[in-house]
Formats: sequence, structure tokens, C-alpha cells
Amino acid sequence: MTTQLTKARKGIVTPEMEIVSQKESCDIQILRKNIASGKVIIPANHEHIRLGISPTGIGKGLSTKVNANIGASPHSVDHTAEMKKLEFCEKYGADTFMDLSTAGNIESLLRAFVEKTGLPLGTVPLYQVVKEKGRADFDISDILRVIEAQAKIGVDFITVHAGFRREFLPFLSGRVTGVVSRGGGITKRWMEFHGRENPLFEAFDDILEICRKHDVSLSLGDSLRPGSLADCGDKAQMAELACLGELTERAWKQGVQVMIEGPGHVPIHHIQGQMEIEKKLCHEAPVYVLGPLVIDTGAGYDHITGAIGGAVAGMYGADMLCYVTPAEHLSLPNSDDVREGLIAFKIAARAADIAKEIPGAMEREKDMSVHRKALRWEAQSRRVFDREKFYRYRMGSGYKGAACSMCGDEFCPMKE
Amino acid sequence: MTTQLTKARKGIVTPEMEIVSQKESCDIQILRKNIASGKVIIPANHEHIRLGISPTGIGKGLSTKVNANIGASPHSVDHTAEMKKLEFCEKYGADTFMDLSTAGNIESLLRAFVEKTGLPLGTVPLYQVVKEKGRADFDISDILRVIEAQAKIGVDFITVHAGFRREFLPFLSGRVTGVVSRGGGITKRWMEFHGRENPLFEAFDDILEICRKHDVSLSLGDSLRPGSLADCGDKAQMAELACLGELTERAWKQGVQVMIEGPGHVPIHHIQGQMEIEKKLCHEAPVYVLGPLVIDTGAGYDHITGAIGGAVAGMYGADMLCYVTPAEHLSLPNSDDVREGLIAFKIAARAADIAKEIPGAMEREKDMSVHRKALRWEAQSRRVFDREKFYRYRMGSGYKGAACSMCGDEFCPMKE
Repeated sequence: MTTQLTKARKGIVTPEMEIVSQKESCDIQILRKNIASGKVIIPANHEHIRLGISPTGIGKGLSTKVNANIGASPHSVDHTAEMKKLEFCEKYGADTFMDLSTAGNIESLLRAFVEKTGLPLGTVPLYQVVKEKGRADFDISDILRVIEAQAKIGVDFITVHAGFRREFLPFLSGRVTGVVSRGGGITKRWMEFHGRENPLFEAFDDILEICRKHDVSLSLGDSLRPGSLADCGDKAQMAELACLGELTERAWKQGVQVMIEGPGHVPIHHIQGQMEIEKKLCHEAPVYVLGPLVIDTGAGYDHITGAIGGAVAGMYGADMLCYVTPAEHLSLPNSDDVREGLIAFKIAARAADIAKEIPGAMEREKDMSVHRKALRWEAQSRRVFDREKFYRYRMGSGYKGAACSMCGDEFCPMKE
Repeated sequence: MTTQLTKARKGIVTPEMEIVSQKESCDIQILRKNIASGKVIIPANHEHIRLGISPTGIGKGLSTKVNANIGASPHSVDHTAEMKKLEFCEKYGADTFMDLSTAGNIESLLRAFVEKTGLPLGTVPLYQVVKEKGRADFDISDILRVIEAQAKIGVDFITVHAGFRREFLPFLSGRVTGVVSRGGGITKRWMEFHGRENPLFEAFDDILEICRKHDVSLSLGDSLRPGSLADCGDKAQMAELACLGELTERAWKQGVQVMIEGPGHVPIHHIQGQMEIEKKLCHEAPVYVLGPLVIDTGAGYDHITGAIGGAVAGMYGADMLCYVTPAEHLSLPNSDDVREGLIAFKIAARAADIAKEIPGAMEREKDMSVHRKALRWEAQSRRVFDREKFYRYRMGSGYKGAACSMCGDEFCPMKE
């Protein structure tokens, strides 16, 4: 078995490439070339293809994607609640989703997910490893066993925190928020406890072997992403990013698809530079940003803080935005938080797509405005992110005019 | 009686300048010079100073301000509800607010506002004119009478749609959304009905006379702002903007303080250019943007659409952001919408302030992150926009650990 990347290099157009090319209105040969050069990935595990994946392309020339993180924590294990979150991912337009469960029967949940949805599914296998073996007592064989098990289930992409080398540990001194990545925190403790190199780095070739076999895409994790504006762009972040660039080349050699995870907390005027450096150091591999959050004080409203950063990152080349919900920094998100986070980031992605001149992006907005000008409310409601909320506002005031209750028919400028 | 601008030109430092300089940690002589050259305004009506205004500076070198629009519509006149909205303006950090009432006893409401709050108050006097006289039957004398009455009450700044010349009417053909400014719509109908020049333009010198007397600042309205991405940057918008530049110079000659209203709906990658053109054509007068909204399809979530645009506009020089609430395009905002809109735009303004290197902006975020790293929740809660929501999320999960319920104590990277 082989990967989309390997096939693209051989000039083969896969059914998944065909579908992505149709969905995105892009030329199939350009798409194939971008996959061959690593600028685009289609995360699609062979098993998930068999079960009925909806192929999704991430990268150059394609629309900006939005990923939603769901999953249980030790204090909230509820299979039904997670399926409800998945339902909201589909309803509110997630392009991919990640299960970040650190508790419960993870493999059973993943199985339910890939059977239920065509959305590409990502995981952080290290969480299952730690759940089963504790934070110190796992070794490389545990990591490989879990990755293989998840690959067989049909997971489409996995976050691997392999770029956090042991030699980078001293770079963390002086940071305001140290390590804020959960996987990075686990890796750090393991390296300090055992006095050895990061096992994900050590096992990288074996991980590639599993990924190649099942066509699992790698999401190279940014363990050392800045968790505060003050830490952004520091030596720790840049050292890891350079390492992710090396790992990208190693993965490409084995025919494994790669995307690069990005920050984090970033001052808004540094986002452009961050995106340029990330693309440069990682050889134009797709960039998958978490937010970024443009301030540190947004708790309760970090979906907005992140949507601002995400829109700017997208404008400057980020290919996929990982949503942030209002629960960020405070608690595990519930399904309402999933909706709020997703819509905020869908807005950011659409804004970025207009800057990227993605086919159809501008037309969609214009179409909405034509209906707005004509005061056609039903037509408008079919073009927004949340039809229920649209009608709650439209009807809530009790106003019965043709215009909206802000100006009323007497003052509505749309009627001029 | 004279204005902050006239005094600044004479080298006089007013008590209001002193206060702004202290609040913003900026050099008093630099501030005075920026006021003298029109780059900064302090909207502070003599009567509102007498009643106890909290002086607020808008413009170069100062923190990015957020304005909240409140006020009644013909279908919702409720004095108590408006006072509640004002309470939320103060609680959630509005820097200025505008009463956009088009119904009810407007002067009585304005009187209650200036007596109640030190926040600078803005209005669109044309609304009261139309409320009293209808859309066609008013003339210049009505406009001047209302402006004078509102100036005497203590209104600190007024939006005047004087830049929409009759000769620009043909430029509107081909627009997707025509005129979307309420004041612009009124002016358009009046010019078409009477076949005469815009009365606000005709009366501009008399308006300046009233403004100079009471030190009412002018907010030069963008009647022809784009109401859809498709209309952004067109001939209509640019013609009016150039006219606003001429009006700015006329106002400055009379010693009247001016800021310029900006768009509107703007593709995210055009915001920088829009800000540069606005500053250039209007001689570096402070720019006061509405949003801007980066997509047209955000109804129900336009506070987020606008916060994205506002943050980017702020980064590129916008001095004040007019909030947009989730009710935008759908209904008159209630007090909950005021809160949601304000917080979204406070986030945008803080993000912009970091880009502008406003004193203390970066330190505030770092301070939050220090407490976050130490898991000091009470200290964090005192630094966020909405303490109640912070605790709803923090406590809602029922989790009792030192960390938050997303990772729990076992996985919290902050503890590494």
C-alpha cells in the first residue's frame, strides 16, 4: 500500500485527488503536482477510504480549512457527548476534526468516529500511550503499538511531537509560560525523568513506516509553541521549527504526507513573519495553526482572540486553522463551545479565502449581499453559519416589517 | 468659548489634555502638538466637562478606542433599556458611546446620558431632525436647530454626513448594496426629492460655528461606505472620502476637532490600503472605523467578523473602532448584544495596541500569562473582560483540581 504523495509523484491521479479537485474547482494536474511536492496533503487513511471518507485537501491553492478538537478528559468521559460534538462539527462546517481524548476507551471512540463520519480524523497517539502506561513508564514500543492500532482503525492524521529535541530543554529558561502543549509537556517530563532523547524523535523512522503503510499524514507538533505573546518567536520555538523542517524532509523521503503545526500566542503584527518563517523552514509544507491568539487576556472569549489571529494567519498563508473555543484556558469544551469555536474560525477562514482569491469565495459574499439589498431574509438565512441564531435575531424583536428592527422600514437604507 | 484644538495651537495645556496624558502615559507636549495638528482629538463638550466628563483622547500615539452604539428605534423605545445598555458600556469598557435613537424623546435621553456618565457621547443629529420633521420635510434650519440643542445638552461628537455631494449620486449605479449608512440613505432621498445639494454640505460653515462654540467634535460620516465586499474601494467611496478631506481642512480652519468615519465591509487584504488612503486623503485626522466586516455572510456573528477587521484596521492605524454586535443586519441590539460586541472589539483594540506598541499593552498580557502559568485563577479573573463568564467556565465542569478541566491535573502542561 502506498500514499497520495507517492502516487502523485508517479503521476497517478487518485480518486481522492479527483474529488478534491472538483470540490475546490482547481486544476487536477496542478493539484497533483502540489501533492507531489508536499505543498498539499490529502489526509485519507486507507481504512477510512474503505469506510467512506470525504477527501479533503489542505495546502497551496486550496480553501483554508478549519479543524475542531473534541474528545474526553479524565473528568468528563461521555461517549454520547463526544458524538454530539461530532454532530456539531459536521453541522457547523468543520473540515477535519481531532480526538484529543486522554481518558475513556479511546480506540472504541475512534472506531465509532471513522464509521460515523467522512470528516478526516486526527489524533495525538501519545495521549493513549500515557493513559495506558502513565507519564514516565512508556517506551518506544508503546508508542509504535498505539500508532499502529490507531492507523489500523482508520485515523487520517496524527500529531507527533518529534521535533522537541532534548538539547532544546535549556532554551525554555526565561520563558513566561514554558511549555503549553500537552504533548510537549509529556515529552518534556519523559526526557527529564529518563535523561534521554525524545522517544518520538528516536522512533521517527518507525513511525514513518506505519504512516506510509496506512497513508496516515503527519502533523508535526509544535511542542514549544509560545503560550504567551512574550514567548513568541524565541529560541525554543525557532529551534523546534527548524527541526520540524528536517523531519519534513525525512518524511517526504519515505513518501509520508506532512503538515506543520504553528503557534500559539502571537502579536498580530508578527503573524505575517511567523507564517513566512514556518513556510521557509519547512519547505512549503502546509501550515496548520492553533489560533493564533493575538492577546493573552481573552479567556472566555478566546474563540474571538483566535479568529482574529487565524484570519490574519490565513491571509499570510496558513492552510488550516485549528479552532479555539470560548472554553480555552478554562475547561473542556462542550458541544455549544464546539459550535461557537467553529463558526468563529469559519468566518476567519472565509476572510482568508477572499485574500487568497480562492475560486468562488468572493462570489459567495456578493450573492449574500444581493439578497441583503433585496431584503430577502429566507435567502439570506440559507447563506449564514447558524440559521437558528439568524432567525432568533430576526424574529426576536417582534418587529414585522420588511426591513430589520434596527432601522425599521422608515429608516432602512437598503430601501433607498 | 474655544476648543481643545484652538488651545493646543496656542500652546495651552488644558486639564483634559493633562488627564489624557496621564491615562495614556504619553508626553504632554507631544500630545498637545498632536492635538494642534489635528492628529488627536479630545471630544469634550464644555457642558459635559461641567457635568464631569472623563476626557478621552483619540488618535496618534494613543491606545485604540472602542465606541458602542446604543439607542432606541421606532419599534423599541424604552428609556430603562437604554440606561441598562449604558451600564454595560461602562462595565465592559467602552471608551465612547453613541446614541443612535430614531424614536422616543431623544433630547431627554441625551440629557440623562450626559448626567449619568463621563463617557464621551456621540449622536447623529439628523436622526432627531427626521424623527421630528419626516424624511423630506426638513431644511437647513431644522438641522442647525437640532445640532445646537444637542450641543447645549453636552453631546461631545456628532456624525455629519456632509461629504456625500449630490454629484456623487451617479456613482452609486452598479453597486451591489447601494447606500447602507442610515444617514446616507436619508441624505440621498432628500437630495433626490428636492433636486438640491446635500443640506449638511450647504450648512457646513454654520455647523462648524456651533461646534466651535461648544467644542463639539465632528465625526465626518461615510455615507457611501461599502456595505458589501464587492462595493469596497469604488468610485463612490473614494469621491466621498476625498470630500471628507476637504471638509477636514475647513473644520480645522475654524478650530473644530475632526475624526473621519471609515468603512464598512472590506476584504481583509485591503484593510491596510484603506487605512493608508483614509489617513492620506484626510491629512492624518483620526480614523474611526465601523468594523470593518471582512465577510458579508456573518449575520448573527458579525461581532466576530468585525473584530477581525477592527484588529487589522487598528494595526494599520485606525484610532477608534466602532463595535458591531451579533444583532447587526438583523435587529436592534439589546444589552447582551452590547456586551458581546464590546468585548469582541476590546479584544481587537488590545491586539492593535500591541502592534502599535502602546505603553503598557504588552505588559498587561505578560502579567496575565505569569498568573496563568502559576494557575492563579483569582488573579487571572481580575484581568479578563468578563469575570462572570470566566468563572462560569472555570466552575461549570465541576472539576476541583488546581488545573483546568481540559487537561486536568494529570496532563496540565503548565505544571511542567
